[in-house]
Amino acid sequence: MSEYLHKDSIGPVVARNKKLDLGNGGFKLENGGMLPEVSVRYETYGSLNASGTNVVWICSPLTADAHVAGFYTPEDKHVGWWDALIGKGKAIDTDKFFVVCSNILGGCKGTTGPADINPQTDRPYGSTFPVITIGDMVRVQKALADSLGIKHYECIIGGSMGGFQAMKWAIYYPDDIERVILIATSPGFASQALGFEIVGRDIIMQDPNYNNGDYYDKQIPAIGLGNARKLAHITYLSAKGMEKRFPRSDIRVENPSKFDTGSSLETYLRHQGEKFVERFDANSYLHIARATDNFDLATEYGSLEKAFSGVNAQFLNVNLSSDWLFPPNESRKITEALLNTGKVVTSLELDTNFGHDGFLVEVGNLGKAVSRFLGGKVGDAPSTGTPAFHSEKDIAIIDSLIPAKARILDLGSGDGLLIDSLWKKKGVTGVGLERNFDNILGSIERDVPVIEKKLDLEALSSFRDQSFDYAVFNRTLPEVRNQQLMLREIMRIAKHAIITFPNFGSWAMRFALCYHGRMPKSDEFPYEWYETPNIHCFTYRDFVKLAEEENLMIEKIITVNEKALSRFLTKVGRVNLGAERVIAMVRKG
Amino acid sequence: MSEYLHKDSIGPVVARNKKLDLGNGGFKLENGGMLPEVSVRYETYGSLNASGTNVVWICSPLTADAHVAGFYTPEDKHVGWWDALIGKGKAIDTDKFFVVCSNILGGCKGTTGPADINPQTDRPYGSTFPVITIGDMVRVQKALADSLGIKHYECIIGGSMGGFQAMKWAIYYPDDIERVILIATSPGFASQALGFEIVGRDIIMQDPNYNNGDYYDKQIPAIGLGNARKLAHITYLSAKGMEKRFPRSDIRVENPSKFDTGSSLETYLRHQGEKFVERFDANSYLHIARATDNFDLATEYGSLEKAFSGVNAQFLNVNLSSDWLFPPNESRKITEALLNTGKVVTSLELDTNFGHDGFLVEVGNLGKAVSRFLGGKVGDAPSTGTPAFHSEKDIAIIDSLIPAKARILDLGSGDGLLIDSLWKKKGVTGVGLERNFDNILGSIERDVPVIEKKLDLEALSSFRDQSFDYAVFNRTLPEVRNQQLMLREIMRIAKHAIITFPNFGSWAMRFALCYHGRMPKSDEFPYEWYETPNIHCFTYRDFVKLAEEENLMIEKIITVNEKALSRFLTKVGRVNLGAERVIAMVRKG
Repeated sequence: MSEYLHKDSIGPVVARNKKLDLGNGGFKLENGGMLPEVSVRYETYGSLNASGTNVVWICSPLTADAHVAGFYTPEDKHVGWWDALIGKGKAIDTDKFFVVCSNILGGCKGTTGPADINPQTDRPYGSTFPVITIGDMVRVQKALADSLGIKHYECIIGGSMGGFQAMKWAIYYPDDIERVILIATSPGFASQALGFEIVGRDIIMQDPNYNNGDYYDKQIPAIGLGNARKLAHITYLSAKGMEKRFPRSDIRVENPSKFDTGSSLETYLRHQGEKFVERFDANSYLHIARATDNFDLATEYGSLEKAFSGVNAQFLNVNLSSDWLFPPNESRKITEALLNTGKVVTSLELDTNFGHDGFLVEVGNLGKAVSRFLGGKVGDAPSTGTPAFHSEKDIAIIDSLIPAKARILDLGSGDGLLIDSLWKKKGVTGVGLERNFDNILGSIERDVPVIEKKLDLEALSSFRDQSFDYAVFNRTLPEVRNQQLMLREIMRIAKHAIITFPNFGSWAMRFALCYHGRMPKSDEFPYEWYETPNIHCFTYRDFVKLAEEENLMIEKIITVNEKALSRFLTKVGRVNLGAERVIAMVRKG
Repeated sequence: MSEYLHKDSIGPVVARNKKLDLGNGGFKLENGGMLPEVSVRYETYGSLNASGTNVVWICSPLTADAHVAGFYTPEDKHVGWWDALIGKGKAIDTDKFFVVCSNILGGCKGTTGPADINPQTDRPYGSTFPVITIGDMVRVQKALADSLGIKHYECIIGGSMGGFQAMKWAIYYPDDIERVILIATSPGFASQALGFEIVGRDIIMQDPNYNNGDYYDKQIPAIGLGNARKLAHITYLSAKGMEKRFPRSDIRVENPSKFDTGSSLETYLRHQGEKFVERFDANSYLHIARATDNFDLATEYGSLEKAFSGVNAQFLNVNLSSDWLFPPNESRKITEALLNTGKVVTSLELDTNFGHDGFLVEVGNLGKAVSRFLGGKVGDAPSTGTPAFHSEKDIAIIDSLIPAKARILDLGSGDGLLIDSLWKKKGVTGVGLERNFDNILGSIERDVPVIEKKLDLEALSSFRDQSFDYAVFNRTLPEVRNQQLMLREIMRIAKHAIITFPNFGSWAMRFALCYHGRMPKSDEFPYEWYETPNIHCFTYRDFVKLAEEENLMIEKIITVNEKALSRFLTKVGRVNLGAERVIAMVRKG
């Protein structure tokens, strides 16, 4: 295992320490306290370019450290905690980027924390360590970055609590950052997660050895810290993942001791507790956890939208399906707030059984997305190119309907071809909705923002009133349920809607049903009835009628007629019979 | 609040104690231990009939007690823990039933437990209390029931750990029990729940005051027990419910003390911990929790199917949508095992934001289902009667196709009319799949077993090979996706499939599309194109073709022709044109 890891790894790395140059006042903390000295442990990989701009900055999660990639000596059993993502030719490519990660303020891995000596007293801080915030952690990182000669950031990346820091980076230094990647994070802990934090803290602080945090010359609160960790560790896994890894059947009914289950799960949890006590300090855990719990962008800035109002970076926001510590619905709040403030965001929903830990252990698809977001191409190339129904002709017609600089919402956006071509041609911006992962990768590769979501009423409900100029259903309206309600919802969100659809009322379709008595197929409807994605087909006339009933004004309606007979029928005024495809633009009447 | 509760309540009740008559050997425990004496605290409501058979037995969850309904004195602030469900005219009707609940073995509410005096030593059992099982709890309850003159049980009901007991009742005393109601339970804790149990136990046992369980003359392990309870309490709530009740925004950033969040959630959790320490004994908690953790029917009996192979009771198995301690997918394993062994089971998925606690606090729909399962009618009557497309004619035709005593699976069973009428007429048994709650209540009222499930491939995958004689899609095949795969799956499950569907190829439909150029509507297809439940329509010919391709033998195909023209067309051999509806029976070719 270790050999394999090493072979793939960036190689030997060095941890460095930097004492920040603070002048006389020390480091002023956001909650009013002060640290007379701050020393930072950090690692860097790759080379900083002359302009100091090729920087990817990694924000560490709660109990990790600066050692994010590589190894110190070839004998090391383990490589850095995100080694799989960082290195030559990897998603975060050290041939291209100068990658930095530092240990966080308040920690116990080399950056100033409660176990360190307070130079003013020559004793460990212990109970006197001041309250810190996520913002303080970020400000320390920025001071380090300045001292390293960094001028600009290609990307700030953070998972979990690292995501909290990354958001603060984007808010504090909006002009310095091109991109931000958030993984398995949220705008603040949800109540359930907070509940576990509260219990964990109580468990530590009620350990008789805790002694209000002054235990460095005595017995440490090992039992409390260990139990808090066991508890927290469960929240990092998913129910399904635990079921697979620790099947119930391995519990021995004849237990080794009265209240032990004798299960592999028990052994595992106790091992996690013990390991943690060896490597982490209870005061650091309490201080960092408290900073995490107090992080709440909506409360701090009045609303999430206000928090993000000044950011300039493009975001990639990734959630993990089985993460219940930072659950997908909490992560989506970030995406929604960014959309609502007109920011550029791509949001991805990764499927994993690994729960919150997924961002550390299952990095295949994550790496593909991160790589493409950073302009690379790690992993299998997605099947890009023109998807089945992205006809050049239709795109040209849509193009003719949309003015320059418009903002569009592409519902079922495939690999982003439509927005990409309109952007290149006339500066149209926008965002797509799409479910297929390969298509989404293709969209990221084109630098077209895309939200991973099923196209339904619930998906539309998160968009603000009139937040787009145009909404486009390119072939996707027959694939959804509740078209009537979908249309109403879309006219709430966008000023105009452009809808392209195959016409079930064309001569070819009518003939097929009437003559053959079978569900018709055609060039436009190539599927068998039992596997067509078109679950609610309709005709040109049906659409016109519905628009009328919904009081929509049809601004433009164009039919596409590839076949001679279609053109003839259209010419003689039998539009519904002739139309093979229809492209309509509507607005509220 | 208290007055209101009292007004609705059954009234003053009395808790009784019964010392079991054990003879010389004491009460032998399943794990090999022995209790020289067992005393049981219990309550009863209503009157036992002369034959001793009108009994509803309530199994208590982990930390509850025998006081399940009523109040002791009018000054009591609280009524029993399930008062909302038990009383005159309530779901568990005390005018009809003799209702009993006892405190469980190992508890601290009047039934023998670790805090009681061991008559052999005249000291509290403490560390010497023997290991108990769920089976022991049930055997104690049965001994109590025998002493009360109970001969037969109309129903055994249990929620949470009470469900564990109820399943043991059904397995141990198969001939004595008519019905079993399981609520928010599972065939054993899933790994995630077990993980929390392990951590909770460690927290208690590592409290310095625990002293291996011998603390009754000293300080009790209050801190450990309180913290274990806070932790457990979070698992009783849902993430969404916590979010609503304890919004993040109430956290004061200016905290009252360094590591307190000052939030209502913190206050609430600490209060829950303190309250629990006042009312519960740490040893009881450990012993009962251990019995709960060791409960695992699949391991104990070799498989869940084997565990249930001998039961005779009919089951109602209810899970709660936001329960993640006994999650729906774990509860469903019980339903599947009962189905797989040919037992009679109705399964219900109740929607709630209250998590596991939902079975205690949100009892409206639960009460309606329980009432109907017990032959009552509490709550709004569901809109029963013949649903839209349950035509008498179609049912008569289906009836003609199915032989007496057959076992059928009705896919989209509405209120159970089809199975009910076939049962009455010729002893056909079976189970329905249905999603609409009112329909399900109607089905329970008819005593037709029904599984609450969306009709899709995943739902079918849980049924065993060839476990039914007939599967019936009565109008529901056009409403599902993947008809081809659905048909394959159904031919795996049943020997024959009977499919009724409206014919999209009828003259009326063809005429409507061809002449009007609009998506056709007819008596059989009365919906607008954008709101029809029929998402994959097909014609008589389409169906015949698909059956052919799938190598299915069409044993019978009958068309229903209400209109004169339909009958004429059929007569002259234009079957597809003439058929308004089609009823086909197929089997593997």
